[in-house]
Amino acid sequence: MSDTASPLLAALRREPHERTPVWFMRQAGRYLPGYMKVRAKTDFLTLCKTPDLAAEVTLEPLDTFGVDGVIIFSDILVPLEAMGLPVVFGDRGPSMETPLANRADIDKLHIPDPVAETGFVMDVIREVKTRVAGRVPVIGFAGAPWTLACYALEGSPSRTFATAKRMVYEAPADLHVLMEKIADTVTLYLRAQVEAGAQVLQLFDSWGGMLAHEAFHEFSLAYCRRILEGLDGCGVPRILFIKGAGIHLESIAEVVKGTGCEAVAIDDTITPERARAVLGGHCAIQGNLPPEALFAPIPDLCAHARKILEAFRGEPGHVFNLGHGITPPTPIPHVRAVIEEVQKFR
Amino acid sequence: MSDTASPLLAALRREPHERTPVWFMRQAGRYLPGYMKVRAKTDFLTLCKTPDLAAEVTLEPLDTFGVDGVIIFSDILVPLEAMGLPVVFGDRGPSMETPLANRADIDKLHIPDPVAETGFVMDVIREVKTRVAGRVPVIGFAGAPWTLACYALEGSPSRTFATAKRMVYEAPADLHVLMEKIADTVTLYLRAQVEAGAQVLQLFDSWGGMLAHEAFHEFSLAYCRRILEGLDGCGVPRILFIKGAGIHLESIAEVVKGTGCEAVAIDDTITPERARAVLGGHCAIQGNLPPEALFAPIPDLCAHARKILEAFRGEPGHVFNLGHGITPPTPIPHVRAVIEEVQKFR
Repeated sequence: MSDTASPLLAALRREPHERTPVWFMRQAGRYLPGYMKVRAKTDFLTLCKTPDLAAEVTLEPLDTFGVDGVIIFSDILVPLEAMGLPVVFGDRGPSMETPLANRADIDKLHIPDPVAETGFVMDVIREVKTRVAGRVPVIGFAGAPWTLACYALEGSPSRTFATAKRMVYEAPADLHVLMEKIADTVTLYLRAQVEAGAQVLQLFDSWGGMLAHEAFHEFSLAYCRRILEGLDGCGVPRILFIKGAGIHLESIAEVVKGTGCEAVAIDDTITPERARAVLGGHCAIQGNLPPEALFAPIPDLCAHARKILEAFRGEPGHVFNLGHGITPPTPIPHVRAVIEEVQKFR
Repeated sequence: MSDTASPLLAALRREPHERTPVWFMRQAGRYLPGYMKVRAKTDFLTLCKTPDLAAEVTLEPLDTFGVDGVIIFSDILVPLEAMGLPVVFGDRGPSMETPLANRADIDKLHIPDPVAETGFVMDVIREVKTRVAGRVPVIGFAGAPWTLACYALEGSPSRTFATAKRMVYEAPADLHVLMEKIADTVTLYLRAQVEAGAQVLQLFDSWGGMLAHEAFHEFSLAYCRRILEGLDGCGVPRILFIKGAGIHLESIAEVVKGTGCEAVAIDDTITPERARAVLGGHCAIQGNLPPEALFAPIPDLCAHARKILEAFRGEPGHVFNLGHGITPPTPIPHVRAVIEEVQKFR
């Protein structure tokens, strides 16, 4: 597929394109009937590790809605498992069997060879690539080091992440050792995804925004930067998403300028106007409909989407997306309506 | 007690005072041995409703550390219970027995008379006042409408507050009805606390920061403003704390200017420099040591505290506090050390 044929690739490179592309974070998942059917007979981790099924789930939003990109179905914890932290799947989603408790646990982690140890993800990408057959770009992804460190230290998503945040102050040197190992793992993992065929990469820092201001720079942003630098020359657009970090948008813009990162995804706390003022001219901007707005009556939802589209009018690289991941039980006709609204906008 | 004798009251009014006052959000609670001893024989809700015990717990940080103000021990859900939503106490803290499900549930809620229906809180304040005997001011508090609405709609603290956020888009008119009832309840509740003897009031919006930018203004900030306006002339300093809303600090400053609100508490994502630039000259500023920094080795902790104190040097109204509530199992010697560090700073 040539870039000009893909509004997503063109927008991410801020090259001319006919219309605003759209895809949604967590677009393949629990709100879709095909996904639910697959999950009825397959547990979550088996689904992630079975390329045929993962590819089927990955393609459902393309076949259902005609989104402008497909993000591979996988779990954010895959790299941690390969580092030596077994993952289990419980009622509240995937979690670590035994969270890291001390420096000795950190020292035991290794930096996995992504092809030898997480080859099933590369197989998913290849299978998706074959099935998509050039219709839209395939998006690879990974969790950012701080977010993965939170999982590794807390075990599962927490409301406060008290254990991980405590380590920032109690044992910062040990935490840096962990962060470096994760950052190097994620860099290799994302490079391998490109080699397997990923045409876009998104780095997700879901929990960076909850760090205090100095800690954010030291433990979230610095390691995102390290990965973006490590991906330099990888040949595909990189999207950086740090949720809840709108207060740090100027610092994120500095990282973009320093690394050449192609795009920043913004959450819904940031106004499009501020995003354009701070990031415009430096990178593409992806966002930022609140996922909960998908529950609004369709006319209100479409009006909300148009307001965002208008706010980005004239911006050479706007990718329409949500402010964060789609939440079940989002009604499917609403998802379809907003995607149509975006794709007809000129 | 005269204001000049209280560094806290003087700082909140930006009047001359000898040293920076200090108190900590959730300073009376699970990390203290006296509290644990009381809780061993009394359940949480009984503790809140027994003035003798609640006063004992309220005073523990004054007697242990010599903090410059005592915040009454109570539960954020008290006003909701009085509105007609029974509270239960489970493994994960207090929650609503039956969260609101629809407009009919909202219509059933009433605006309680604070003295007749939450008189035990006023009794706690009177008992605390007697025992403190003028040593330091007594701080009353309430949760802000958005935070209380989250509890009323979700039942208990959630990682995503998906139900409450969904209502913003799905049924905004119904949500406004709920918000107005809560705002009027909280205004009366806080006024009654002043009548019972509270000398400072803090309004806590723990969850405002997770709203999308427009929704933040419409559902968090507007109702904080309404309460601050309703407290006009109440005669005691009002502290507004909206966690995670650093991105909206300029809008918060506008509310301060419009309402004469005496102080804003800032979380730890905001730099002292930005807080001074935006709020300085308009109100006192309270904050903002990360609660997790209390786990740092004492010399590092004290250095961190001094950095904050230095950053506010010359600001006529700085109250030292945490960026949010203290978390168990914070070590007591660390709490003592940082309070001493603040109180000796000149």
